[in-house]
Amino acid sequence: MTSARVLERLTAALGDRVVTSPDALDEARADKSGHRSDAPPLAVVEAASIDDVQQTLRIATETGTPVVPRGAGTGLAGGAIASGGEIALSLRSMDRVLEIDENDLIAVVEPGILNGEFGRILAERGLWFAPDPASKEISTVGGNIATNAGGLLCAKYGVTRDAVLALKIVLADGTLMSLGHRSVKGVTGLDLTALLVGSEGILGVIVEATVRVRRAVPGVVTTLAATFPHVTDAAAACSAITAAGIQPAVMELLEPTALAAIHDYLGLEVPTPGRTQIMVQTDGPLSADDARACLAIIEANGGVGEVAANEADGERLLSIRRAMHPAMEKLGHPLIEDVSVPRSALVPMFEAIQEVEREFGISIPTVAHAGDGNLHPNFVYQGDEVPEVIWQAADALFLAAIRLGGTLTGEHGIGILKRRWLEDELGAEQVDLQRRIKATFDPQGLLNPGKVFDPIV
Amino acid sequence: MTSARVLERLTAALGDRVVTSPDALDEARADKSGHRSDAPPLAVVEAASIDDVQQTLRIATETGTPVVPRGAGTGLAGGAIASGGEIALSLRSMDRVLEIDENDLIAVVEPGILNGEFGRILAERGLWFAPDPASKEISTVGGNIATNAGGLLCAKYGVTRDAVLALKIVLADGTLMSLGHRSVKGVTGLDLTALLVGSEGILGVIVEATVRVRRAVPGVVTTLAATFPHVTDAAAACSAITAAGIQPAVMELLEPTALAAIHDYLGLEVPTPGRTQIMVQTDGPLSADDARACLAIIEANGGVGEVAANEADGERLLSIRRAMHPAMEKLGHPLIEDVSVPRSALVPMFEAIQEVEREFGISIPTVAHAGDGNLHPNFVYQGDEVPEVIWQAADALFLAAIRLGGTLTGEHGIGILKRRWLEDELGAEQVDLQRRIKATFDPQGLLNPGKVFDPIV
Ligand SMILES: Cc1cc2nc3c(=O)[nH]c(=O)nc-3n(C[C@H](O)[C@H](O)[C@H](O)COP(=O)(O)OP(=O)(O)OC[C@H]3O[C@@H](n4cnc5c(N)ncnc54)[C@H](O)[C@@H]3O)c2cc1C
Ligand SMILES: Cc1cc2nc3c(=O)[nH]c(=O)nc-3n(C[C@H](O)[C@H](O)[C@H](O)COP(=O)(O)OP(=O)(O)OC[C@H]3O[C@@H](n4cnc5c(N)ncnc54)[C@H](O)[C@@H]3O)c2cc1C
Repeated sequence: MTSARVLERLTAALGDRVVTSPDALDEARADKSGHRSDAPPLAVVEAASIDDVQQTLRIATETGTPVVPRGAGTGLAGGAIASGGEIALSLRSMDRVLEIDENDLIAVVEPGILNGEFGRILAERGLWFAPDPASKEISTVGGNIATNAGGLLCAKYGVTRDAVLALKIVLADGTLMSLGHRSVKGVTGLDLTALLVGSEGILGVIVEATVRVRRAVPGVVTTLAATFPHVTDAAAACSAITAAGIQPAVMELLEPTALAAIHDYLGLEVPTPGRTQIMVQTDGPLSADDARACLAIIEANGGVGEVAANEADGERLLSIRRAMHPAMEKLGHPLIEDVSVPRSALVPMFEAIQEVEREFGISIPTVAHAGDGNLHPNFVYQGDEVPEVIWQAADALFLAAIRLGGTLTGEHGIGILKRRWLEDELGAEQVDLQRRIKATFDPQGLLNPGKVFDPIV
Repeated sequence: MTSARVLERLTAALGDRVVTSPDALDEARADKSGHRSDAPPLAVVEAASIDDVQQTLRIATETGTPVVPRGAGTGLAGGAIASGGEIALSLRSMDRVLEIDENDLIAVVEPGILNGEFGRILAERGLWFAPDPASKEISTVGGNIATNAGGLLCAKYGVTRDAVLALKIVLADGTLMSLGHRSVKGVTGLDLTALLVGSEGILGVIVEATVRVRRAVPGVVTTLAATFPHVTDAAAACSAITAAGIQPAVMELLEPTALAAIHDYLGLEVPTPGRTQIMVQTDGPLSADDARACLAIIEANGGVGEVAANEADGERLLSIRRAMHPAMEKLGHPLIEDVSVPRSALVPMFEAIQEVEREFGISIPTVAHAGDGNLHPNFVYQGDEVPEVIWQAADALFLAAIRLGGTLTGEHGIGILKRRWLEDELGAEQVDLQRRIKATFDPQGLLNPGKVFDPIV
């Protein structure tokens, strides 16, 4: 069927929720990965209801048109990028909180609500939603679920998967299906709820989510910052804190190049060259004791640190970490990588990064969620295209992470950008099995084709 | 191929790991559900290595012979029951701890180790494994993973799925596949690790697991017990404790018939008729404060309770709960049901149970993991077969749980016994999708056929 005919059918069914302005089409070609599709999609559908999603997918199935689900487009893997002949299906306008149950500590939301907005609504009732990607003010809960987003707090409070109890999804053929239940436990049949979390839009479109929320943690939050002469000492201190059984809410590490760039961006004094910084935040009624215990471990590992006097000072310390992304953007286009290793492998992983820096003659400013072994090495390049040398350097990093028992992506997903390494991590047989699972949901291959798996040619 | 020929091939490949003694074959016909298959299996293979499992499955695939994976056979849903013409594949002898990493708080185990045995090995290093089914002394870690076992501690410390990072599985055709990674985070491709947890042996045989372990929780454990005039007050008190944001490690509820049966079994004084008991255990450095806060909520809800003087007294209180299963067995054959509802629906669920008792003229002694809304109504019957009236009563219970937003099984699984309700909970379309997913792992339908899904006729 011609594109014009598909568009006609969409418009007949969905009216002005079908958008074809050049700006909207252009926006749907990109996410925050720096990658752009080679042509604008056919249309952007701004779904306002489950029914809109079902209608879109029915038309897609009848006309053989690919559909790319999209939240806020903040993804870092190219997963929400739509290309020529495809429909970009935006869930952003489905942004209501449908229910908050303070007794069961459950909320039901539409997928398009921004994580930060949801958090503010919960906060009015003394509740919060644990998944907290650094992008929470700009990304949707549906996108967080579709990518199994992590964040600063997830070493202690879990990744998005741990917070999802039930989902409503629409399949490629327009079927609406309810997965999971409102109870915290349940083992009826295969756990498709868990399978959908992190599925990057290739299995179904998430149109509603029942999530766990938590009561605000009592007590104050205590923050400390410390510096170390070498990145490997800092990494060792972080591993030692976890091994001691202390559970910081936040534990972030910034190595010297990252730290210098951020100080420059924020107009702060130049930090002592070569020193690595860590920030640790503890919460709960014993947060001050826990912070002191962390400090003792830090000092035993050659660090010099201090506990912030109060919560405001603590937030100021953490704002340095939060400035990482804009600081990188000031230097050029950052390609933000996302390897994750067992916590005790932080030291060898940093050594591997340094080796890659030497081998390829580039600098790789890196921050790490040290509490869970997830590192974000940044490759900053100039111009519009990621230079081949950077892909080669990234390749060396990915293989090092896999060798250390980790993974090439801890929280951002595969999307388009990491497809070529999928088989390195999973093996050919598992990739084949995963493709066949995808086909049980979407036999025609219409949902987000070319994402996660290489396109079938 | 004839059974004799299959047996010959198994024996040629696996020697005396192929057992055909009448006792062994008979044992493999049952689990702890009270259900027995109608004929003994062809053989029991006592696998001693991954290679043994692969060889068994290769022979099974070549000869079209069904295989029933089996841990310790303590399941309550008939999931490990083998029947005529099938191979029972026991993992019980693969029981080694392969690695304990105290820094990363990870352990790697073979599937056949008993949960309790694993716990003792960990305890020597001040570590523990959170999944704690009441059957932990008699069930295997592999079986716990295959059923996504819950337990007393799971409201606070999570279900088995939350503790599993990586699995090695053998597919029906003998292929060995590694799922997941040693890092705590990772989103490469679809989350097949989570899909395998709770899959009841229908997708693959779990031959190795990498699990999270925890450091021993510091501080003492505080236990309190309280009684209430009505089961619904007790349930309301439990809901109020959770809604207040307190996280007891254990919160168990015993209604009057259950309590009376246990007192009788243990030779204790007859409890005040009609009163319901709850037991709450708090842990961590603030356990005494938390217990006092629980007691205040209990009293506000009409309960009368007391905090145990010390840990030994606390354990004595909890031993009453632990005697539930033997107390039921003294009365006849218990069919242990396992509905789970949102916590706030505990009260209506107990009301529904009372209605079923009235309607069918039977007594349904019930205990509940009140911290997570999971109830175990027991139907006690005489003779070898579950009487039809009990299935009808169970049917009414299941539908009530589903209506309340819950599930027909919180932790025991579907197996054979609950197949006929699968569609009531999931709907026909989802059951069909789940069957197709099963077929991607096992196209010939040889792994645990007739479990979870009705046999295809
Ligand atoms: C500055 C910055 C910081 C970041 N920090 C973090 C971080 O700390 N942790 C982290 O995990 N990520 C982080 N990210 C990445 C990104 O924000 C997350 O991946 C986020 O979860 C994406 O949400 P989104 O709404 O923008 O989804 P999109 O980018 O629109 O989509 C992401 C993927 O999900 C799919 N998808 C979206 N919505 C749905 C739906 N309703 N149904 C089905 N599929 C859907 C898309 O097809 C796509 O594959 C960061 C990004 C930026 C720019
Ligand atoms: C007194 C008593 C108390 C109980 N309390 C609880 C409780 O508190 N919480 C709870 O969740 N359960 C409980 N159970 C049920 C049972 O103990 C659990 O389901 C347990 O996890 C089963 O482990 P198992 O080794 O006995 O597995 P089995 O009964 O042998 O098998 C159970 C299922 O898992 C599959 N399976 C087993 N091993 C593997 C493997 N390696 N690979 C693939 N599939 C496999 C089997 O095919 C079957 O479908 C209780 C049972 C009893 C008798």
